[in-house]
Amino acid sequence: MMITSNQNPKIKLVRALLSRTKERREAGAFVIEGVRLFEEAVRSAWEIKFVLYDERLSKRGKLQVESLKLKNVEVEEISTSVMQSLSETETPQGVLAVLADSQIPMAEALNFVLIPDQIRDPGNLGTLLRSAAATGAQAALIPPETTDVFAPKVLRAGMGAHFRLPIRLMDWEAIRAFVEARRLQVLIADMDGVACWDCDLTQPLALVIGGEAAGASTAALQLAEGKVGLPMRGEVESLNAGVAGSALMFEVLRQRR
Amino acid sequence: MMITSNQNPKIKLVRALLSRTKERREAGAFVIEGVRLFEEAVRSAWEIKFVLYDERLSKRGKLQVESLKLKNVEVEEISTSVMQSLSETETPQGVLAVLADSQIPMAEALNFVLIPDQIRDPGNLGTLLRSAAATGAQAALIPPETTDVFAPKVLRAGMGAHFRLPIRLMDWEAIRAFVEARRLQVLIADMDGVACWDCDLTQPLALVIGGEAAGASTAALQLAEGKVGLPMRGEVESLNAGVAGSALMFEVLRQRR
Repeated sequence: MMITSNQNPKIKLVRALLSRTKERREAGAFVIEGVRLFEEAVRSAWEIKFVLYDERLSKRGKLQVESLKLKNVEVEEISTSVMQSLSETETPQGVLAVLADSQIPMAEALNFVLIPDQIRDPGNLGTLLRSAAATGAQAALIPPETTDVFAPKVLRAGMGAHFRLPIRLMDWEAIRAFVEARRLQVLIADMDGVACWDCDLTQPLALVIGGEAAGASTAALQLAEGKVGLPMRGEVESLNAGVAGSALMFEVLRQRR
Repeated sequence: MMITSNQNPKIKLVRALLSRTKERREAGAFVIEGVRLFEEAVRSAWEIKFVLYDERLSKRGKLQVESLKLKNVEVEEISTSVMQSLSETETPQGVLAVLADSQIPMAEALNFVLIPDQIRDPGNLGTLLRSAAATGAQAALIPPETTDVFAPKVLRAGMGAHFRLPIRLMDWEAIRAFVEARRLQVLIADMDGVACWDCDLTQPLALVIGGEAAGASTAALQLAEGKVGLPMRGEVESLNAGVAGSALMFEVLRQRR
């Protein structure tokens, strides 16, 4: 039986999980949308609570849905209009999945960790997570002031980073204990910091990328040993936090190659 | 007299310029929104056709508006509801300006040029222009397949790059003549290219950043002498074109420091 009603409990749950952090925290679950993220989720073996698809799903996507059915994952077809009403995109790819929060195991020995601090823009946070995964960071520690990592736009911009990079929500006390136990040098990304090219970024590092508006928090400033900057030409005042942080992380990778 | 009607000719013009490339091309004009871009435009001395503001404009913004009136720039107050209906943002800052297309003079001697090729996402194009300005590129050459540089989202993501970086719309024949006349080496950003850290990027360079979907165009491939890549760790497949292109441009700046 195809689900055609917006009042169906599964549809109501998906809508709540898509729109509110509180619902996601309480349910310990979140929603991914689109074939690509869906494939990454399936491959990552995260617990899938259920999958919704509609007739627009590609053949390749439908094959994946069928293989999940064989594994006893709950899969339901929904009407195109219900999918459209749930989707964040104008042209939905026809698949949504509700996943249980999962913790990717963290390596014992860490030497590069990202701390996105007071990042409010979901696109920037997703970009930072993706670049962290691409530059060899082994974890992302998320302080309370940063926007919810499991919000739909963060997942979309992360393009699968959530399924590869260990992500931990921590308060600053826990972050302090974490970096001290592992002897990570804490550096804050800052326009006025030492040029990243002149910094030794090969040592064990926790890199704090401050928010778009207020920069790094007081707690981060208290914890940090120094500031590292991305030099710029011309009169450009600042870059988007996602772009500047990504360029810094690629400099870390360059120095460690 | 405050403008309160959506049928007012100025309001209709702004709406057309905001929504359609064709209108912008025909009018040789475009719209900027928000205090920051407005200030950059005023400072850049580009021709301002007219300015619309509403009561929500900040004191600082209103002072700028007043100073423009003294210079005989046409300035009109509009109702908050009309502003809301025009604005691309949920909380408009209360100022819009229609500017005439303008060409920032280009240096005779160039050694770093960006060519965003088949970039369809306005946010990515704006990011690339901004990073080009921040890394010392002296021009951006825009091939026909790339999205309109004067679209509102490109302007917003560019954060003022349009007022600092010479931008030229060119077909591939003109681009070929341009790079040959200036002896610029044309390199295409490509995952499978030579690692950027192992490439000599200090020589006169035209850097092609290919689009999100199809990569670089056939015309670019025919023109290019080689490919340069941003090395990545892990299973990450690709980065967003704006982020990857920006990281590459910062490597150019690093090598030339």
